[in-house]
Amino acid sequence: MTEATPQQPKKILVVSAHPEPRSLNAAMTTFAVEHLRAAGHEVRVSDLYAMKWKATVDADDFPHHTADRRLEVMAASERATLAGRLSPDIAAEQEKVRWSDAVILQFPMWWFSVPAILKGWIDRVFTAGFGYGPAVPPPYAEGPLAGRRALVSVTIGARETGFSDRGIHGPLADVLYPVQHGLFWFTGMAPLEPFAVYGANDVPEERYAAGKRAYGRRLDGLFTDEPVAFRTLVGGDYDHDMRLLPGVEAPGTSGLELHVRPRG
Amino acid sequence: MTEATPQQPKKILVVSAHPEPRSLNAAMTTFAVEHLRAAGHEVRVSDLYAMKWKATVDADDFPHHTADRRLEVMAASERATLAGRLSPDIAAEQEKVRWSDAVILQFPMWWFSVPAILKGWIDRVFTAGFGYGPAVPPPYAEGPLAGRRALVSVTIGARETGFSDRGIHGPLADVLYPVQHGLFWFTGMAPLEPFAVYGANDVPEERYAAGKRAYGRRLDGLFTDEPVAFRTLVGGDYDHDMRLLPGVEAPGTSGLELHVRPRG
Repeated sequence: MTEATPQQPKKILVVSAHPEPRSLNAAMTTFAVEHLRAAGHEVRVSDLYAMKWKATVDADDFPHHTADRRLEVMAASERATLAGRLSPDIAAEQEKVRWSDAVILQFPMWWFSVPAILKGWIDRVFTAGFGYGPAVPPPYAEGPLAGRRALVSVTIGARETGFSDRGIHGPLADVLYPVQHGLFWFTGMAPLEPFAVYGANDVPEERYAAGKRAYGRRLDGLFTDEPVAFRTLVGGDYDHDMRLLPGVEAPGTSGLELHVRPRG
Repeated sequence: MTEATPQQPKKILVVSAHPEPRSLNAAMTTFAVEHLRAAGHEVRVSDLYAMKWKATVDADDFPHHTADRRLEVMAASERATLAGRLSPDIAAEQEKVRWSDAVILQFPMWWFSVPAILKGWIDRVFTAGFGYGPAVPPPYAEGPLAGRRALVSVTIGARETGFSDRGIHGPLADVLYPVQHGLFWFTGMAPLEPFAVYGANDVPEERYAAGKRAYGRRLDGLFTDEPVAFRTLVGGDYDHDMRLLPGVEAPGTSGLELHVRPRG
Protein backbone atom coordinates (compact mmCIF):
# COMPACT_ATOMS: atom_id res chain seq x y z
CA MET A 1 0.00 0.00 0.00
CA THR A 2 2.73 2.46 0.92
CA GLU A 3 6.39 2.70 0.01
CA ALA A 4 8.59 0.48 2.10
CA THR A 5 9.88 2.51 5.02
CA PRO A 6 13.66 2.38 5.31
CA GLN A 7 14.54 0.27 8.33
CA GLN A 8 17.57 0.03 10.55
CA PRO A 9 19.71 -2.82 9.29
CA LYS A 10 19.10 -5.88 11.43
CA LYS A 11 20.56 -9.34 11.85
CA ILE A 12 18.48 -12.31 10.83
CA LEU A 13 19.08 -16.04 11.19
CA VAL A 14 17.20 -18.28 8.76
CA VAL A 15 17.04 -21.94 9.75
CA SER A 16 16.00 -24.12 6.84
CA ALA A 17 15.04 -27.78 6.99
CA HIS A 18 14.47 -29.62 3.71
CA PRO A 19 16.56 -32.43 2.21
CA GLU A 20 16.18 -31.24 -1.40
CA PRO A 21 18.05 -28.13 -2.60
CA ARG A 22 15.54 -27.78 -5.45
CA SER A 23 12.53 -27.85 -3.12
CA LEU A 24 9.97 -25.14 -2.49
CA ASN A 25 11.41 -24.74 1.00
CA ALA A 26 14.90 -24.17 -0.38
CA ALA A 27 13.48 -21.63 -2.83
CA MET A 28 11.67 -19.82 -0.01
CA THR A 29 14.89 -19.68 1.98
CA THR A 30 16.83 -18.29 -0.99
CA PHE A 31 14.08 -15.76 -1.61
CA ALA A 32 14.09 -14.64 2.04
CA VAL A 33 17.86 -14.26 2.12
CA GLU A 34 17.91 -12.18 -1.05
CA HIS A 35 14.90 -10.11 -0.06
CA LEU A 36 16.27 -9.31 3.39
CA ARG A 37 19.76 -8.54 2.10
CA ALA A 38 18.31 -6.27 -0.56
CA ALA A 39 16.63 -4.38 2.29
CA GLY A 40 20.04 -3.86 3.89
CA HIS A 41 19.87 -6.54 6.57
CA GLU A 42 22.57 -9.01 7.53
CA VAL A 43 21.46 -12.61 7.07
CA ARG A 44 22.95 -15.91 8.14
CA VAL A 45 21.54 -19.29 7.15
CA SER A 46 21.60 -22.61 8.95
CA ASP A 47 20.72 -25.07 6.19
CA LEU A 48 20.33 -28.08 8.46
CA TYR A 49 20.49 -30.80 5.82
CA ALA A 50 23.46 -29.18 4.06
CA MET A 51 25.20 -28.92 7.46
CA LYS A 52 24.39 -32.58 8.16
CA TRP A 53 22.99 -31.37 11.46
CA LYS A 54 23.00 -34.09 14.13
CA ALA A 55 19.39 -34.39 15.20
CA THR A 56 19.56 -36.36 18.42
CA VAL A 57 20.46 -35.20 21.91
CA ASP A 58 22.93 -37.60 23.48
CA ALA A 59 25.96 -37.66 25.77
CA ASP A 60 28.25 -36.49 22.94
CA ASP A 61 26.58 -33.08 23.20
CA PHE A 62 28.28 -32.65 26.58
CA PRO A 63 31.91 -33.71 25.97
CA HIS A 64 32.81 -33.47 29.66
CA HIS A 65 30.05 -35.83 30.69
CA THR A 66 31.57 -39.16 31.68
CA ALA A 67 29.87 -42.37 30.72
CA ASP A 68 29.96 -43.77 34.24
CA ARG A 69 27.46 -41.11 35.32
CA ARG A 70 23.79 -41.33 34.50
CA LEU A 71 22.96 -38.72 31.86
CA GLU A 72 20.34 -36.36 33.25
CA VAL A 73 19.76 -34.28 30.17
CA MET A 74 18.65 -31.00 31.72
CA ALA A 75 21.38 -31.01 34.38
CA ALA A 76 24.14 -32.05 31.97
CA SER A 77 22.95 -29.50 29.44
CA GLU A 78 23.01 -26.69 32.01
CA ARG A 79 26.46 -27.63 33.37
CA ALA A 80 27.95 -27.77 29.87
CA THR A 81 26.28 -24.52 28.82
CA LEU A 82 27.38 -22.51 31.83
CA ALA A 83 30.92 -23.90 31.65
CA GLY A 84 31.20 -23.22 27.90
CA ARG A 85 31.70 -26.90 27.23
CA LEU A 86 28.95 -27.75 24.77
CA SER A 87 29.80 -29.62 21.61
CA PRO A 88 31.06 -27.09 19.03
CA ASP A 89 28.14 -27.51 16.61
CA ILE A 90 25.68 -26.53 19.36
CA ALA A 91 27.83 -23.62 20.52
CA ALA A 92 28.01 -22.30 16.95
CA GLU A 93 24.21 -22.28 16.61
CA GLN A 94 23.77 -20.61 19.99
CA GLU A 95 26.16 -17.91 18.84
CA LYS A 96 24.01 -17.35 15.74
CA VAL A 97 20.83 -17.10 17.80
CA ARG A 98 22.49 -14.67 20.23
CA TRP A 99 23.78 -12.61 17.30
CA SER A 100 20.35 -12.39 15.70
CA ASP A 101 17.59 -9.82 16.02
CA ALA A 102 15.18 -12.28 14.44
CA VAL A 103 14.99 -16.00 13.77
CA ILE A 104 13.05 -17.48 10.85
CA LEU A 105 12.25 -21.18 10.73
CA GLN A 106 11.58 -22.45 7.19
CA PHE A 107 10.21 -25.98 7.04
CA PRO A 108 7.68 -28.35 5.54
CA MET A 109 5.03 -29.46 8.03
CA TRP A 110 5.51 -33.19 8.55
CA TRP A 111 3.06 -34.98 10.81
CA PHE A 112 1.67 -31.72 12.13
CA SER A 113 5.04 -30.52 13.41
CA VAL A 114 8.56 -29.64 12.37
CA PRO A 115 10.76 -32.22 10.60
CA ALA A 116 12.94 -34.28 12.94
CA ILE A 117 16.12 -32.49 11.88
CA LEU A 118 14.61 -29.16 12.94
CA LYS A 119 13.24 -30.65 16.15
CA GLY A 120 16.81 -31.75 16.75
CA TRP A 121 18.04 -28.20 16.21
CA ILE A 122 15.52 -27.05 18.81
CA ASP A 123 16.27 -29.88 21.26
CA ARG A 124 20.05 -29.45 21.04
CA VAL A 125 20.52 -25.68 20.68
CA PHE A 126 18.06 -24.46 23.33
CA THR A 127 19.93 -25.97 26.26
CA ALA A 128 19.25 -25.30 29.91
CA GLY A 129 21.24 -22.19 30.69
CA PHE A 130 20.67 -20.86 27.17
CA GLY A 131 16.96 -21.13 26.41
CA TYR A 132 15.51 -21.91 29.83
CA GLY A 133 16.33 -23.03 33.33
CA PRO A 134 17.10 -21.57 36.73
CA ALA A 135 20.30 -19.82 35.55
CA VAL A 136 18.49 -17.53 33.08
CA PRO A 137 15.46 -15.22 33.25
CA PRO A 138 12.12 -17.00 33.73
CA PRO A 139 10.10 -18.21 30.76
CA TYR A 140 7.50 -16.45 28.64
CA ALA A 141 8.26 -12.98 27.36
CA GLU A 142 11.04 -12.12 29.77
CA GLY A 143 13.03 -15.22 28.81
CA PRO A 144 16.74 -15.22 28.00
CA LEU A 145 16.23 -14.51 24.28
CA ALA A 146 13.95 -11.51 24.77
CA GLY A 147 14.32 -8.70 22.26
CA ARG A 148 14.26 -11.04 19.27
CA ARG A 149 11.49 -11.64 16.80
CA ALA A 150 10.60 -15.04 15.43
CA LEU A 151 8.76 -16.16 12.33
CA VAL A 152 7.61 -19.56 11.16
CA SER A 153 7.46 -19.99 7.39
CA VAL A 154 5.87 -23.33 6.71
CA THR A 155 4.80 -25.28 3.65
CA ILE A 156 1.82 -27.57 4.11
CA GLY A 157 0.64 -30.25 1.72
CA ALA A 158 -2.99 -30.06 2.82
CA ARG A 159 -5.54 -27.40 2.05
CA GLU A 160 -6.01 -24.34 4.22
CA THR A 161 -9.57 -25.12 5.29
CA GLY A 162 -8.38 -28.16 7.29
CA PHE A 163 -6.31 -25.77 9.42
CA SER A 164 -9.04 -23.15 9.84
CA ASP A 165 -10.90 -22.44 13.08
CA ARG A 166 -13.11 -25.49 12.72
CA GLY A 167 -10.73 -27.46 10.50
CA ILE A 168 -10.16 -31.09 11.41
CA HIS A 169 -6.38 -30.74 11.68
CA GLY A 170 -6.81 -27.97 14.25
CA PRO A 171 -6.32 -24.22 13.72
CA LEU A 172 -2.78 -23.58 12.48
CA ALA A 173 -2.10 -21.45 15.57
CA ASP A 174 -2.97 -24.41 17.80
CA VAL A 175 -0.96 -26.94 15.80
CA LEU A 176 2.05 -24.61 15.97
CA TYR A 177 1.51 -23.66 19.64
CA PRO A 178 4.44 -25.88 20.76
CA VAL A 179 6.73 -23.80 18.51
CA GLN A 180 5.11 -20.36 18.70
CA HIS A 181 4.41 -20.34 22.42
CA GLY A 182 6.43 -23.32 23.65
CA LEU A 183 9.74 -22.44 21.99
CA PHE A 184 9.68 -18.80 20.85
CA TRP A 185 7.61 -17.16 23.56
CA PHE A 186 8.93 -19.44 26.30
CA THR A 187 12.50 -18.35 25.56
CA GLY A 188 11.49 -14.70 25.29
CA MET A 189 11.28 -14.30 21.51
CA ALA A 190 8.28 -12.45 20.09
CA PRO A 191 6.55 -14.68 17.53
CA LEU A 192 4.77 -13.18 14.52
CA GLU A 193 1.75 -14.82 12.92
CA PRO A 194 3.05 -17.83 10.96
CA PHE A 195 3.39 -17.58 7.19
CA ALA A 196 2.01 -20.66 5.45
CA VAL A 197 1.90 -21.95 1.88
CA TYR A 198 -0.84 -24.56 1.59
CA GLY A 199 -1.30 -27.15 -1.15
CA ALA A 200 2.48 -27.21 -1.24
CA ASN A 201 2.89 -30.52 -3.06
CA ASP A 202 1.90 -28.83 -6.29
CA VAL A 203 2.55 -25.11 -6.59
CA PRO A 204 2.17 -23.80 -10.14
CA GLU A 205 4.38 -20.87 -11.19
CA GLU A 206 1.65 -18.28 -10.79
CA ARG A 207 0.76 -19.31 -7.27
CA TYR A 208 4.44 -19.44 -6.39
CA ALA A 209 4.88 -15.87 -7.62
CA ALA A 210 1.92 -14.75 -5.50
CA GLY A 211 3.32 -16.66 -2.54
CA LYS A 212 6.66 -14.91 -2.87
CA ARG A 213 4.97 -11.52 -2.99
CA ALA A 214 2.98 -12.33 0.15
CA TYR A 215 6.09 -13.65 1.90
CA GLY A 216 8.02 -10.54 0.85
CA ARG A 217 5.45 -8.38 2.60
CA ARG A 218 5.79 -10.47 5.75
CA LEU A 219 9.57 -10.15 5.60
CA ASP A 220 9.18 -6.38 5.18
CA GLY A 221 7.14 -6.38 8.38
CA LEU A 222 9.53 -8.60 10.34
CA PHE A 223 10.40 -5.81 12.75
CA THR A 224 7.25 -3.72 12.48
CA ASP A 225 4.29 -6.13 12.39
CA GLU A 226 2.55 -6.76 15.69
CA PRO A 227 3.69 -10.05 17.26
CA VAL A 228 1.13 -12.51 18.57
CA ALA A 229 0.01 -10.94 21.84
CA PHE A 230 0.68 -13.91 24.14
CA ARG A 231 0.21 -13.17 27.82
CA THR A 232 3.21 -12.78 30.09
CA LEU A 233 3.68 -15.03 33.09
CA VAL A 234 4.53 -12.10 35.35
CA GLY A 235 1.84 -9.78 34.02
CA GLY A 236 -0.71 -10.75 36.64
CA ASP A 237 -2.80 -13.04 34.46
CA TYR A 238 -1.63 -16.33 35.98
CA ASP A 239 -1.64 -17.81 39.47
CA HIS A 240 1.45 -19.26 41.10
CA ASP A 241 0.69 -22.64 39.54
CA MET A 242 0.83 -21.13 36.04
CA ARG A 243 -2.93 -21.31 35.55
CA LEU A 244 -4.79 -18.44 33.93
CA LEU A 245 -6.80 -16.60 36.57
CA PRO A 246 -10.58 -16.86 36.29
CA GLY A 247 -12.27 -14.17 34.27
CA VAL A 248 -9.28 -12.42 32.71
CA GLU A 249 -10.24 -13.53 29.22
CA ALA A 250 -12.75 -11.80 26.97
CA PRO A 251 -16.15 -13.52 27.07
CA GLY A 252 -16.30 -16.45 24.66
CA THR A 253 -12.53 -16.94 24.48
CA SER A 254 -11.41 -20.53 24.93
CA GLY A 255 -8.88 -23.16 24.00
CA LEU A 256 -5.30 -22.07 23.49
CA GLU A 257 -6.50 -18.59 22.56
CA LEU A 258 -6.94 -18.07 26.31
CA HIS A 259 -3.22 -17.33 26.33
CA VAL A 260 -3.49 -14.45 23.88
CA ARG A 261 -4.35 -11.04 25.32
CA PRO A 262 -7.73 -9.69 24.21
CA ARG A 263 -7.48 -7.20 21.36
CA GLY A 264 -7.82 -3.52 21.78
CA MET B 1 -10.63 -52.30 42.38
CA THR B 2 -11.48 -55.64 40.78
CA GLU B 3 -9.41 -58.65 39.84
CA ALA B 4 -7.67 -58.26 36.50
CA THR B 5 -9.84 -59.86 33.84
CA PRO B 6 -7.95 -62.40 31.73
CA GLN B 7 -7.45 -60.93 28.29
CA GLN B 8 -6.73 -62.42 24.92
CA PRO B 9 -2.99 -62.27 24.37
CA LYS B 10 -2.17 -59.30 22.15
CA LYS B 11 0.85 -57.91 20.35
CA ILE B 12 2.31 -54.66 21.57
CA LEU B 13 5.09 -52.50 20.18
CA VAL B 14 6.81 -50.18 22.67
CA VAL B 15 8.83 -47.37 21.10
CA SER B 16 11.19 -45.80 23.60
CA ALA B 17 13.20 -42.60 23.13
CA HIS B 18 15.73 -41.67 25.80
CA PRO B 19 19.52 -41.58 25.50
CA GLU B 20 20.18 -42.88 29.03
CA PRO B 21 19.56 -46.58 29.85
CA ARG B 22 19.33 -45.64 33.55
CA SER B 23 16.66 -42.99 32.95
CA LEU B 24 13.10 -42.87 34.20
CA ASN B 25 11.93 -43.41 30.62
CA ALA B 26 14.05 -46.55 30.28
CA ALA B 27 12.66 -47.79 33.59
CA MET B 28 9.09 -47.14 32.43
CA THR B 29 9.77 -49.07 29.24
CA THR B 30 11.20 -52.02 31.17
CA PHE B 31 8.26 -51.91 33.53
CA ALA B 32 5.75 -51.89 30.65
CA VAL B 33 7.45 -54.79 28.89
CA GLU B 34 7.51 -56.92 32.04
CA HIS B 35 3.98 -55.98 33.06
CA LEU B 36 2.53 -56.74 29.63
CA ARG B 37 4.46 -60.01 29.26
CA ALA B 38 3.33 -61.09 32.72
CA ALA B 39 -0.22 -60.57 31.47
CA GLY B 40 0.46 -62.97 28.60
CA HIS B 41 1.00 -60.46 25.81
CA GLU B 42 3.72 -60.48 23.19
CA VAL B 43 5.87 -57.37 23.32
CA ARG B 44 8.49 -55.96 20.99
CA VAL B 45 10.58 -52.90 21.77
CA SER B 46 12.11 -50.31 19.50
CA ASP B 47 14.66 -48.61 21.73
CA LEU B 48 15.52 -45.82 19.33
CA TYR B 49 18.76 -44.66 20.91
CA ALA B 50 20.04 -48.22 21.36
CA MET B 51 19.17 -48.88 17.70
CA LYS B 52 20.99 -45.69 16.67
CA TRP B 53 17.84 -44.83 14.78
CA LYS B 54 18.51 -42.40 11.91
CA ALA B 55 16.28 -39.43 12.61
CA THR B 56 16.25 -37.50 9.37
CA VAL B 57 14.27 -38.18 6.22
CA ASP B 58 16.52 -37.95 3.19
CA ALA B 59 17.11 -39.54 -0.20
CA ASP B 60 18.83 -42.56 1.39
CA ASP B 61 15.42 -43.63 2.69
CA PHE B 62 14.44 -44.37 -0.89
CA PRO B 63 17.39 -46.34 -2.32
CA HIS B 64 15.99 -46.33 -5.84
CA HIS B 65 15.68 -42.57 -5.94
CA THR B 66 18.37 -41.20 -8.23
CA ALA B 67 20.18 -38.02 -7.27
CA ASP B 68 19.57 -36.37 -10.64
CA ARG B 69 15.86 -36.18 -9.82
CA ARG B 70 14.42 -33.63 -7.44
CA LEU B 71 13.40 -35.39 -4.23
CA GLU B 72 9.69 -34.84 -3.68
CA VAL B 73 9.35 -36.51 -0.32
CA MET B 74 5.74 -37.63 -0.42
CA ALA B 75 5.93 -38.95 -3.98
CA ALA B 76 9.27 -40.73 -3.44
CA SER B 77 8.02 -42.14 -0.17
CA GLU B 78 4.89 -43.53 -1.80
CA ARG B 79 6.74 -45.02 -4.76
CA ALA B 80 9.27 -46.74 -2.51
CA THR B 81 6.58 -47.99 -0.12
CA LEU B 82 4.34 -49.48 -2.79
CA ALA B 83 7.29 -51.08 -4.61
CA GLY B 84 8.70 -52.55 -1.36
CA ARG B 85 11.90 -50.55 -1.84
CA LEU B 86 12.20 -48.58 1.38
CA SER B 87 15.44 -48.59 3.28
CA PRO B 88 15.54 -51.75 5.45
CA ASP B 89 15.43 -49.93 8.80
CA ILE B 90 12.14 -48.27 7.82
CA ALA B 91 10.68 -51.50 6.43
CA ALA B 92 11.53 -53.30 9.69
CA GLU B 93 9.66 -50.71 11.77
CA GLN B 94 6.66 -50.80 9.46
CA GLU B 95 6.58 -54.56 9.89
CA LYS B 96 6.49 -54.09 13.68
CA VAL B 97 3.64 -51.58 13.48
CA ARG B 98 1.70 -53.87 11.14
CA TRP B 99 2.31 -56.80 13.49
CA SER B 100 1.07 -54.88 16.52
CA ASP B 101 -2.35 -54.61 18.09
CA ALA B 102 -1.16 -51.57 20.05
CA VAL B 103 1.67 -49.07 19.90
CA ILE B 104 3.05 -47.35 23.00
CA LEU B 105 5.29 -44.31 22.68
CA GLN B 106 7.50 -43.74 25.75
CA PHE B 107 9.34 -40.42 25.75
CA PRO B 108 10.35 -37.35 27.72
CA MET B 109 8.55 -34.20 26.60
CA TRP B 110 11.19 -31.91 25.12
CA TRP B 111 10.08 -28.49 23.93
CA PHE B 112 6.42 -29.43 24.18
CA SER B 113 6.77 -32.32 21.76
CA VAL B 114 8.53 -35.62 21.17
CA PRO B 115 12.35 -35.81 21.10
CA ALA B 116 13.85 -35.45 17.64
CA ILE B 117 14.77 -39.13 17.42
CA LEU B 118 11.13 -40.10 17.95
CA LYS B 119 9.94 -37.43 15.53
CA GLY B 120 12.33 -39.06 13.09
CA TRP B 121 10.75 -42.44 13.75
CA ILE B 122 7.37 -40.89 12.96
CA ASP B 123 8.60 -38.98 9.90
CA ARG B 124 10.40 -41.97 8.40
CA VAL B 125 8.17 -44.93 9.30
CA PHE B 126 4.76 -43.43 8.47
CA THR B 127 5.44 -43.10 4.76
CA ALA B 128 2.88 -42.29 2.10
CA GLY B 129 1.40 -45.62 1.15
CA PHE B 130 1.79 -46.89 4.72
CA GLY B 131 0.39 -44.25 7.05
CA TYR B 132 -1.45 -41.95 4.66
CA GLY B 133 -1.87 -41.03 1.04
CA PRO B 134 -4.10 -41.84 -1.92
CA ALA B 135 -3.08 -45.53 -2.07
CA VAL B 136 -4.49 -46.33 1.40
CA PRO B 137 -7.81 -45.72 3.19
CA PRO B 138 -8.55 -42.06 3.97
CA PRO B 139 -7.37 -40.46 7.19
CA TYR B 140 -8.99 -40.28 10.61
CA ALA B 141 -10.45 -43.44 12.10
CA GLU B 142 -10.70 -45.44 8.91
CA GLY B 143 -6.99 -44.98 8.14
CA PRO B 144 -4.65 -47.77 7.07
CA LEU B 145 -3.66 -48.68 10.65
CA ALA B 146 -7.22 -49.01 11.96
CA GLY B 147 -7.83 -51.70 14.54
CA ARG B 148 -4.81 -50.74 16.61
CA ARG B 149 -4.69 -48.91 19.90
CA ALA B 150 -2.13 -46.28 20.75
CA LEU B 151 -0.85 -44.90 24.04
CA VAL B 152 1.49 -42.03 24.83
CA SER B 153 3.47 -42.47 28.06
CA VAL B 154 5.30 -39.22 28.65
CA THR B 155 7.56 -37.81 31.35
CA ILE B 156 7.36 -34.06 31.86
CA GLY B 157 9.76 -31.94 33.88
CA ALA B 158 7.18 -29.26 34.68
CA ARG B 159 4.31 -29.44 37.14
CA GLU B 160 0.87 -30.71 36.16
CA THR B 161 -0.98 -27.44 36.74
CA GLY B 162 0.86 -25.79 33.80
CA PHE B 163 -0.74 -28.41 31.53
CA SER B 164 -4.22 -28.18 33.03
CA ASP B 165 -7.24 -26.65 31.29
CA ARG B 166 -6.11 -23.08 31.97
CA GLY B 167 -2.41 -23.91 32.31
CA ILE B 168 0.03 -21.66 30.49
CA HIS B 169 1.66 -24.51 28.56
CA GLY B 170 -1.72 -25.52 27.17
CA PRO B 171 -3.83 -28.53 28.20
CA LEU B 172 -1.85 -31.72 27.73
CA ALA B 173 -4.43 -32.97 25.23
CA ASP B 174 -3.86 -29.87 23.09
CA VAL B 175 -0.07 -30.02 23.30
CA LEU B 176 -0.20 -33.66 22.24
CA TYR B 177 -2.87 -33.14 19.57
CA PRO B 178 -0.29 -33.47 16.77
CA VAL B 179 0.54 -36.97 18.06
CA GLN B 180 -2.84 -38.13 19.39
CA HIS B 181 -4.97 -36.83 16.55
CA GLY B 182 -2.37 -35.95 13.90
CA LEU B 183 -0.46 -39.24 13.96
CA PHE B 184 -2.52 -41.91 15.74
CA TRP B 185 -6.05 -40.97 14.75
CA PHE B 186 -5.01 -39.77 11.29
CA THR B 187 -3.54 -43.19 10.48
CA GLY B 188 -6.54 -44.99 11.98
CA MET B 189 -5.13 -45.95 15.39
CA ALA B 190 -7.37 -45.39 18.43
CA PRO B 191 -5.51 -43.23 20.96
CA LEU B 192 -6.10 -43.63 24.67
CA GLU B 193 -5.79 -40.74 27.10
CA PRO B 194 -2.06 -40.04 27.53
CA PHE B 195 -0.29 -41.26 30.65
CA ALA B 196 1.97 -38.58 32.11
CA VAL B 197 4.49 -38.40 34.95
CA TYR B 198 5.02 -34.76 35.92
CA GLY B 199 7.90 -33.28 37.91
CA ALA B 200 9.99 -35.93 36.20
CA ASN B 201 13.40 -34.37 36.85
CA ASP B 202 13.20 -35.52 40.44
CA VAL B 203 11.08 -38.56 41.21
CA PRO B 204 11.62 -39.96 44.70
CA GLU B 205 11.23 -43.69 45.15
CA GLU B 206 7.77 -43.44 46.68
CA ARG B 207 6.35 -41.35 43.87
CA TYR B 208 7.98 -43.68 41.34
CA ALA B 209 6.29 -46.66 42.98
CA ALA B 210 2.94 -44.89 42.80
CA GLY B 211 3.63 -43.93 39.19
CA LYS B 212 4.31 -47.54 38.27
CA ARG B 213 1.09 -48.67 39.92
CA ALA B 214 -0.87 -46.04 37.99
CA TYR B 215 0.86 -46.96 34.75
CA GLY B 216 0.21 -50.63 35.40
CA ARG B 217 -3.51 -49.91 35.61
CA ARG B 218 -3.34 -48.07 32.28
CA LEU B 219 -1.49 -51.00 30.72
CA ASP B 220 -4.15 -53.35 32.08
CA GLY B 221 -6.73 -51.20 30.28
CA LEU B 222 -4.83 -50.97 27.00
CA PHE B 223 -7.47 -52.94 25.13
CA THR B 224 -10.49 -52.22 27.31
CA ASP B 225 -10.32 -48.51 28.27
CA GLU B 226 -12.37 -46.14 26.13
CA PRO B 227 -10.17 -44.41 23.53
CA VAL B 228 -10.42 -40.64 23.06
CA ALA B 229 -13.65 -40.19 21.14
CA PHE B 230 -12.29 -38.18 18.22
CA ARG B 231 -14.78 -37.56 15.45
CA THR B 232 -14.55 -39.43 12.18
CA LEU B 233 -14.12 -37.59 8.92
CA VAL B 234 -16.79 -39.67 7.20
CA GLY B 235 -19.24 -39.66 10.10
CA GLY B 236 -21.14 -36.62 8.85
CA ASP B 237 -19.61 -34.07 11.22
CA TYR B 238 -17.37 -32.35 8.65
CA ASP B 239 -18.00 -30.56 5.37
CA HIS B 240 -16.09 -31.41 2.18
CA ASP B 241 -13.39 -28.95 3.15
CA MET B 242 -12.71 -30.82 6.41
CA ARG B 243 -14.37 -28.18 8.58
CA LEU B 244 -16.60 -29.16 11.44
CA LEU B 245 -20.22 -28.42 10.52
CA PRO B 246 -21.90 -25.64 12.50
CA GLY B 247 -23.77 -26.69 15.59
CA VAL B 248 -22.66 -30.31 15.88
CA GLU B 249 -20.76 -29.64 19.09
CA ALA B 250 -22.24 -29.54 22.57
CA PRO B 251 -22.89 -25.95 23.73
CA GLY B 252 -19.75 -24.39 25.22
CA THR B 253 -17.33 -26.76 23.48
CA SER B 254 -14.43 -25.03 21.82
CA GLY B 255 -10.80 -25.23 20.86
CA LEU B 256 -9.41 -28.59 19.84
CA GLU B 257 -12.06 -30.30 21.94
CA LEU B 258 -14.43 -29.55 19.06
CA HIS B 259 -12.99 -32.65 17.44
CA VAL B 260 -14.01 -34.93 20.29
CA ARG B 261 -17.54 -36.33 20.20
CA PRO B 262 -19.77 -35.10 23.00
CA ARG B 263 -20.06 -37.56 25.89
CA GLY B 264 -23.02 -39.75 26.50
